[in-house]
Parts: sequence; C-alpha cells; structure tokens
Amino acid sequence: MQPQTPDWVRDAVFYQIFPDRFARSVTVPKPKHLDEWGATPTYHGYQGGDLIGVIEHLDYLQDLGINAIYFTPIFQSASNHRYHTHDYEKVDPMLGGNSALGRLIEEAHARRIRVVLDGVFNHASRGFFQFHDIMENGQNSAYLDWFHINGFPLNAYDAEKKPNYGAWWGLPALPKFNTGSPEVREFLWGIGRRWIDAGIDGWRLDVPNEIDDDSFWREFRRRVHAGNPEAYIVGEVWTDSQRWLQGDMWDAVMNYQFTKACVAYFIGEKVNEKELRPTALHPAGAPGAESFKRAIERLLGLYAPEINAVMLNLLGSHDMARFVTLANDDVSAFRLATTFQLTYPGAPSIYYGDEVGLRGGHDPFNRGAFPWHRPEAWDRDLLHEFQRLISLRRARPALRRGSFKILHAAGDLLAHTRQLDGETIVVAFNAATRHHKLSIPMQGVADDDTVFEEPGKPRSAQKVQAGALHVELPPRSSLILATPFPG
Amino acid sequence: MQPQTPDWVRDAVFYQIFPDRFARSVTVPKPKHLDEWGATPTYHGYQGGDLIGVIEHLDYLQDLGINAIYFTPIFQSASNHRYHTHDYEKVDPMLGGNSALGRLIEEAHARRIRVVLDGVFNHASRGFFQFHDIMENGQNSAYLDWFHINGFPLNAYDAEKKPNYGAWWGLPALPKFNTGSPEVREFLWGIGRRWIDAGIDGWRLDVPNEIDDDSFWREFRRRVHAGNPEAYIVGEVWTDSQRWLQGDMWDAVMNYQFTKACVAYFIGEKVNEKELRPTALHPAGAPGAESFKRAIERLLGLYAPEINAVMLNLLGSHDMARFVTLANDDVSAFRLATTFQLTYPGAPSIYYGDEVGLRGGHDPFNRGAFPWHRPEAWDRDLLHEFQRLISLRRARPALRRGSFKILHAAGDLLAHTRQLDGETIVVAFNAATRHHKLSIPMQGVADDDTVFEEPGKPRSAQKVQAGALHVELPPRSSLILATPFPG
Repeated sequence: MQPQTPDWVRDAVFYQIFPDRFARSVTVPKPKHLDEWGATPTYHGYQGGDLIGVIEHLDYLQDLGINAIYFTPIFQSASNHRYHTHDYEKVDPMLGGNSALGRLIEEAHARRIRVVLDGVFNHASRGFFQFHDIMENGQNSAYLDWFHINGFPLNAYDAEKKPNYGAWWGLPALPKFNTGSPEVREFLWGIGRRWIDAGIDGWRLDVPNEIDDDSFWREFRRRVHAGNPEAYIVGEVWTDSQRWLQGDMWDAVMNYQFTKACVAYFIGEKVNEKELRPTALHPAGAPGAESFKRAIERLLGLYAPEINAVMLNLLGSHDMARFVTLANDDVSAFRLATTFQLTYPGAPSIYYGDEVGLRGGHDPFNRGAFPWHRPEAWDRDLLHEFQRLISLRRARPALRRGSFKILHAAGDLLAHTRQLDGETIVVAFNAATRHHKLSIPMQGVADDDTVFEEPGKPRSAQKVQAGALHVELPPRSSLILATPFPG
Repeated sequence: MQPQTPDWVRDAVFYQIFPDRFARSVTVPKPKHLDEWGATPTYHGYQGGDLIGVIEHLDYLQDLGINAIYFTPIFQSASNHRYHTHDYEKVDPMLGGNSALGRLIEEAHARRIRVVLDGVFNHASRGFFQFHDIMENGQNSAYLDWFHINGFPLNAYDAEKKPNYGAWWGLPALPKFNTGSPEVREFLWGIGRRWIDAGIDGWRLDVPNEIDDDSFWREFRRRVHAGNPEAYIVGEVWTDSQRWLQGDMWDAVMNYQFTKACVAYFIGEKVNEKELRPTALHPAGAPGAESFKRAIERLLGLYAPEINAVMLNLLGSHDMARFVTLANDDVSAFRLATTFQLTYPGAPSIYYGDEVGLRGGHDPFNRGAFPWHRPEAWDRDLLHEFQRLISLRRARPALRRGSFKILHAAGDLLAHTRQLDGETIVVAFNAATRHHKLSIPMQGVADDDTVFEEPGKPRSAQKVQAGALHVELPPRSSLILATPFPG
C-alpha cells in the first residue's frame, strides 16, 4: 500500500509547547499554590501556564515563523506534565478548560497555525474514573476489565508494595489500559475522534508501541480520518518504526533517530554524557560526517518517501536535556544542527524556548518557564537565526518538498542538496573548530556556470565551476547556497 | 423577612429515584461487571439503572400521578449511590451521561414533571480531581487549600491509619471540602448554577448543615435564583432546621421529623426496632394520636407557612428502611401514613418502589431494583391506592394549598381538615386493630347540614349534624370526606 500522509505537514514547522511552562495569562483563574514563574522546575510543582497564555503569544510564534503547534498533554491531570490523565474529555481547568482550547484552535487556525495534541492512550492515572472505581469498589467494580488487575485490594498508594495491576514501567501512578477490552477500545477511539471533531489537526501518540496491537491503531486511524482525512498521526517511538509506518497506522514518528545522528555529528565528542545517559539517545553514534551520512541515509531508507516527508524531526523535547545543554553550552552545535533540521525533509519541530537559548538538563529541568519575564536573558542572535531559517524554509519549496542528497561527507565536513522544479539548494557544514575550504561536487546536481547565492545576499553569487561549488567555511559554521528564485 | 418559596412546589408530588435501581435501558451501553437486576443489593455492586430507563418509564410515573422527581446523585461517581462525587460536571456515563440528562429534562418538562438533583457539596471523593492532585503531588499540589489537610503523605487508602485530612464522619472515601476557600466556594456555587442553567428545577442538598456557614448558603441561593428564581432548594437535615429556613437559604428540608411522627402513630409499638435503630428516627416517639398531634403541631409551629407549604414530606428514602419493612410488613400502617402524607401541607415525596410494596431493610437493602421484571410481585392494591390519593390531591386544591387543622386526636383516632375557598376536606384515621365510631367535631369548620361525601362516591353523602360528622372506621383504616367540588 502506498502511504498517504497529510499534505500540509510537508509545509509545517512545528513548535512544541509544554503548557504549564510556556505562558501564563492573568485572565485564567489559578489555584493558589503555584511555584513562581521561572522557578527551577520540580517534579511536582506547577507554574501555571495556560492556553490563553499561548493565544496571547501567537504574534510571537507567527514572527518566529512556525505554522503548527504540538502540545504535550492538556487534559485534566494531577501532574504538571499532564501525562497522568484524569479526564480525557476535559482540558485541564488550570489551562483554561475546554473553552480555552476552543478559542485557541479558532485563533490559531485564523493565522493558519495547526494544532496537534498529545494522546496518552496506553495508560491513565490512579484518579481516572474507571480505575478509581476499582480502587473504591474492588471486585464489585463495574470496570474490572478496563485494566489488568492481579489482586485485591489494589496496592496503588502503598509505596512499600509493588502495584498488583499492570502499570507503565511498573509505576503505580500509571495503570495500563486493557486495550483488549471492547469498552476500552471504543472509549479510546472515541476520544481520538472527539477532539478531532473539536477542530484539532492531529495526534502525537504517547508510547504507542506499548499498545502492541496493530488492529487497535488501524481502527484508530480510521476513526480519526473519518473526522478529518488530513489529520496527522505521529507516534512517539524512539527506535526504527517500520511496523507502524506502512500507511495503515501512523503517518510518522518523533524522529529521535534523527536527533541522535545530530547529537553525534554536531556536538560530537563534547557531548554531556551525564545528560545524554537518561535517554534512549545514549550512547550517541560515532562522530564525524561519514557516520552522519550513513545514519541519515539508513534512516531515509527505512520508510517510504511519503513518510519521510512528514517525519517529526526534532532536536529537543520534554524527554531529553535541551540540545544546548547536551552540547555543554556550545551554541554553535545547536545552530549547525538547526540549520540541518530546517533544510532536511520532514517537519521540523522546535522545542519551546530552544530558540532563545533556554538551557536545561534532563527532566524536570528541561521544562523551565519561557523567560517572558527576563527578556535580557534571550539569545536574540539565535532567535534571529531561527527566524531566518524558518523563513527560508517557508519561502523555498525545495527545502520542504525537494529531493534530498548528501553531496559530500568527510571528516568534519558535510554538504547536502535539496532540489525541486529547477530550484537547487546546497547546504554545507563545517563541524570543525578550524577554518575549512570545501569543493562541493555538483555533478548531476547543477551544470557548470549555474549561479548560486546565499539567500538574501545577491553579492554572494558564485557559479558552479569544474563540477563543483568552492566554498569557505569558518570554524563551526554552515553555509546555504541557492539558485535564485525561479522568475 | 417573609420567606418566598417556589409556588410550583405547593402543587408537587415528588417521586424519589435512586438511579442505579429504578430502570435500566438497553440503549445505554453498560460495563460488563454488573450485578443482576433485582439481585440482593450490596454496598459496592452496580445494577445498571440509567436515566434513559427513567424516560422509558415516564408513562408509568405519569399514571402514578407524580409531577416532580428527586434524584439521588447522578454525577460521575465510583459508588452505586453516587454520593462520592468524582466529577460534578458530568452525569455518570453508566447513567447515560450529560446527554441523557438533557433528554430526561426535556421529556419530563414536556409532561410537566419537574426534576430536582441531589447536590453533594460538603465532601467529594478520593478520585475528585483536586483531591487526587494532592494525593499525587503532596505539598506541591496546586490545590492544597481545597481540603483540610493535616499531614503528608495522605493516608487515604491505608485502612490501618486514620485519614490525616478532614473527612465526613472520618470516612477516608469522603474528603470534606474546605468551603472557607474562595476557590472552593466559587466552584461549588458555579456547580449549583451550572445545572440550573441545564434546566433542572432545584437542588436537594446532602448534609448541608455540615457546611456550617450561612454566608455560603445565602450566596448559593442567590446564584441558583439568578438562574431560575423558582428553583427549589431543600436541605437534608433530620432535626429542627429553623436556622436555614428563614427565607434566605433554603426553601425546605427533608421532613424526617414528619416521618418520625408517622412511624410512631401509624406503626406504633409494632415498629421494627432493629431497622429503625440505624437512623436518626430512633427512638420513635410515643404512639397514639395525642402524641402525633403534638408532634405535628410543634413541627408546623417551627416554620413560616410559606416554608411548611413546600416541606418535603417523606415516608421513605434511601437512608432508612422502607416504611413497610419498618412496620414488619404491616401494609396498613403504610397505607394510613400515606393517606396522611398526601392530605397534609407540603410536598409529598414517594420513595421509588414503595408504591408497589417493595420491601427492604436499612442500607443497602432499601435500594433494591424496581421489580419491572417481576410484575407478579407488585402490590397492585397499594399502587391503586397511591394513584387514587395522588389524583385526589391533584384534583383538590384544598389538599395542596388549604389550611390545616387537627380536629380530633385521642387514643388511636385522629381527624384533620384542609380548607380553601369554601372547599373543606376531612380525613379521619383509625390506627387501632378494632372498629371505631368517631364523631368529628366540625365547629368552626363547617356548619350543620353541610354535605360531605367520599370523593368519587356520591352515595356516601352525609351531612354535618349537631356540629359533627359521624363516621364509622373499620380497623386500621382511614376515611376522606370532602365537600363536593364547588360548582
């Protein structure tokens, strides 16, 4: 089967928002016991971000250039990350409730910004109604088959005992759904559809590989597509994912294999091992451009082009230390990697705050509040670089929909090209700490005398000569060269 | 202040429904693990009644003659009685969810039947979102001030330890709200209003005296009345309730003092002590008509007439053994008491199933499934008696809105009268097991030669003679005599 993936994702640049930490509106009533905005993040404390706060910063996001938002969970949950779902039918009251999501969808769509939510369907929380019913009623519960119960009474809050029910990673707070139960299946499929009907543009699926049941995901896709045939379904799987990416289940995965390759090449040996270790990105691959080429080409070979075109390519998320922190504060590594991300096929995803240089180690420190309150702390050069690269990607179809080919990969140097309809873009990277000259081989890409220039810099024009583009690359730099806009 | 109470309640005959046990529709999807319909009730098992089942039996209720339903709780709850609220904004999915309530309100209103819900605002449940948040996040919870927390971690599910938080009657399953918190007050008032806006006609308040704060209830009344000035607010208080019945808080209480007087007089010494003891009706008062007269007159003297006119007068509820069971199966006691109830000022409330002679001891046995599945078990004579009495009450304004006076009370014999606009009704009771003649003194009530008859029996006509009505009362019987319809 030829996979069909949503066309709009080919043109999307995502921005990932962790709702408790992005922006806090004074118009949303809040409970009293909140941590201060910008406090060092803790496992349990709330800082009170909300969806109206997001609406209030849509201008900022539009200036940044993104046109899609992926939200980590927003449903009612007794955890600041909201992965412990208490109610799948309610947006958390602290975020502004269902009405805030309705407004957000409306205002985002008015700006042609899409909205993707996080679907946590593998497990619920101890307070989730049907699990709570078993807690309260034991064997008399009406909902025994909703979970995997091994004994009574449930050991749900007794830290001395292991949970006597199926729980994600054995964590008592996260009872695993029995997705073999017809009721549970209908419930979860219904939730999938319910929010599509409310106007969202897709689902990011949390640990979906743990629902080891292809028929579940096939029906999930059918239900979601019945509501919106262009909805995007992207799974959180950190490893190769061919099983689910044949066109009948999901459109894409969060491309952590891409992340891992970028860590190896753009950070290289300077990587902060302590911060990398808690993730599946550890150990990073071998450094150097050759390894990177192999990793990227292998990855592209795993999936059909229709899948690669909509993969969610990320350099940061709430589940890993921020890229700059992984690089021990070497911002150049992040700039290089971002240049690659934004000139590579698939949908780039920017983790909120990365664009202004926010730092943060592994959970919970990677979830700091966006520093609206400390504009002096923003890395404005980095922000402008993001704006430039996003703007370029959106201006040049070849960067979004063009072919991809690595033209050169040796030592610290890499060059690749994107081509579409007579438009050619070449991107070169020098990951070394010293100056390099590079002759990028252009055979089969562009004829001699083809003019390239750095976008926006007409004086930088140069021609292909003797089958190559000859470029100078200062230490830790990248260069984008493009044929001028056709016409 | 002159109390203003809803006019419609003066004409109301309530039917109290325990939703898990009244009627089960095949159209509402149900979880698997339900007890059989009609099984001996247990503390924890569900039998799967729902609100669509109620709609499907509105014909029955209309034939019975009632014109208002008071539902014990219907919001999402992990208990078959649903007093442990998990979510105040959702009708329990097993009952059909919010849409079922919407349909029910619409269809009931189309038949001029009012709908009153049970508001459990003193305490929530362990799975209620904000309490769950404290369970999950401890001192970092955003909602610490929603409850009365005395230590961490919470001992909520450890049966060995007492709860270290305020809980109703010390029951860990029922954390008491901190109604001193502005957030909690707004939340509860908001719930009060939210369902009024959804079309309900009033609130029965669960243990409202335990929210020891008149300002809370005054504002509750304002919020509810802002949505519907004719909404009925009736508190569950088993004792004298003048504090709340001055016109600024509630309209009425569940009149268990009335119940208690009826137990003493109509059941008398034959009362089942074992079944009475678990309730605040124990010990029953002294038997005999004189005691009954004193009890009733004392009760009427406690409140303004506008309050007495809308008191919720009940002979049964989910919180006491069924009246017939209290009477050790002496149906005559229940028939006599029902005749009094339906000829007395205030709104009679019939506990579902009592009208067909359903038996049942104290919780949980008083919550048996309505025997739709066993029509042969119905006491049809009793049902017809209910239909006759309700029909009479609805036909004769004096029974609903007339003055009330006890004309005779001595030994086992009692007579009272209701008068309005030239209409006079006299009701006489013989609680003895032998035949009695009674001369009911009519001075100041009706002149000599005034004709009375048993409603619907013109041949029973008799006249007031020498200032009295002379009646024959078979053992354990009552007699209703009325002036013919004016015009």
